[in-house]
Amino acid sequence: MEILVILAHPYRESFNHAIYQTVLDTLNENRHQILAHNLYEEEFNPLLGGSELATGETSDPLVLKHRQEIKKAHGIIIIHPNWWGQPPAILKGWTDRVLRSGVAYQFEEGDDGSGVPEGLLVAETALVFNTSNTPLEREIQVFGDPLERIWKDCVFDFCGIKNFNRKMFRTIASSTPKERELWLEDVKKTINTYFP
Amino acid sequence: MEILVILAHPYRESFNHAIYQTVLDTLNENRHQILAHNLYEEEFNPLLGGSELATGETSDPLVLKHRQEIKKAHGIIIIHPNWWGQPPAILKGWTDRVLRSGVAYQFEEGDDGSGVPEGLLVAETALVFNTSNTPLEREIQVFGDPLERIWKDCVFDFCGIKNFNRKMFRTIASSTPKERELWLEDVKKTINTYFP
Repeated sequence: MEILVILAHPYRESFNHAIYQTVLDTLNENRHQILAHNLYEEEFNPLLGGSELATGETSDPLVLKHRQEIKKAHGIIIIHPNWWGQPPAILKGWTDRVLRSGVAYQFEEGDDGSGVPEGLLVAETALVFNTSNTPLEREIQVFGDPLERIWKDCVFDFCGIKNFNRKMFRTIASSTPKERELWLEDVKKTINTYFP
Repeated sequence: MEILVILAHPYRESFNHAIYQTVLDTLNENRHQILAHNLYEEEFNPLLGGSELATGETSDPLVLKHRQEIKKAHGIIIIHPNWWGQPPAILKGWTDRVLRSGVAYQFEEGDDGSGVPEGLLVAETALVFNTSNTPLEREIQVFGDPLERIWKDCVFDFCGIKNFNRKMFRTIASSTPKERELWLEDVKKTINTYFP
């Protein structure tokens, strides 16, 4: 299968990079074809401008490449830290620019954009791996865990992907090497479950 | 009072721009000092890089200016469309880069970042004006309205601002000129209530 993997973290030594590497290694072992993107490294431009907003058309070759790849991907894996209950801006911009009408979803003819669209993505499964410094109880009680609704309902269900799984590793700041090792084992097991 | 106003929409003829203009006009009429930022127009760079993430320090003069202004603002007003249950990437990047430790919040000495910080912003009130093409019922039932938790709990409560109000105008795509006129009246009334 062709699997799209997206990483959004600026720091090479981050645990997010370790998750990314584990995902790539495991997909490789399982002989999948990998479409991998480290958004910071490839200098993805997150700014959706006025004419691109209006027409959906862009001349940015990297955005066009992402659109082609996500249309055909059989699986999607996204890795990012929890910043303010949201992804980093570079990944928000990836969502804004790549998941456009005609690529990821489509409204019925005559719909002004307030109806219910048809999801166009063919991927069966989307996985999200997150890291956080907020303990679980505080996340649920104080912040309401907006990342779950964002990825599950606002993005992937909207685009037609029903099989969704998200793993949050916490808290990173206070984690031991042993914990991080077990978390990477968990990443590997998750990949083996969904993309054997 | 000094009021910080932030606009994040790429298209000059958008209803977001009309809200922005109404906010500025009303604040002017009420003789407040305005710190206004059209993020697209001023080409705000939303990318938080690795060393800025680690140290909080930046040499970007525009980011430094925003940090100075938000620290002293007596009120904060944010205007943006609902894109995927989140703000546009340029505004997400403003959050990532401007609202840093020592500017907007501070953890106690010795806290590794997983504790409960002290909010540092002195503004009494934060207002958010949003636009959307999703009908209210679908927003609540299908998407869970993540923007409410994001701005109210993840951002402003975290930074010490207790007085929060958010207005969502919907649905923009199907709105009539008369509706939009009434919405701008509502914006004006809201500003007059919170910043007379």
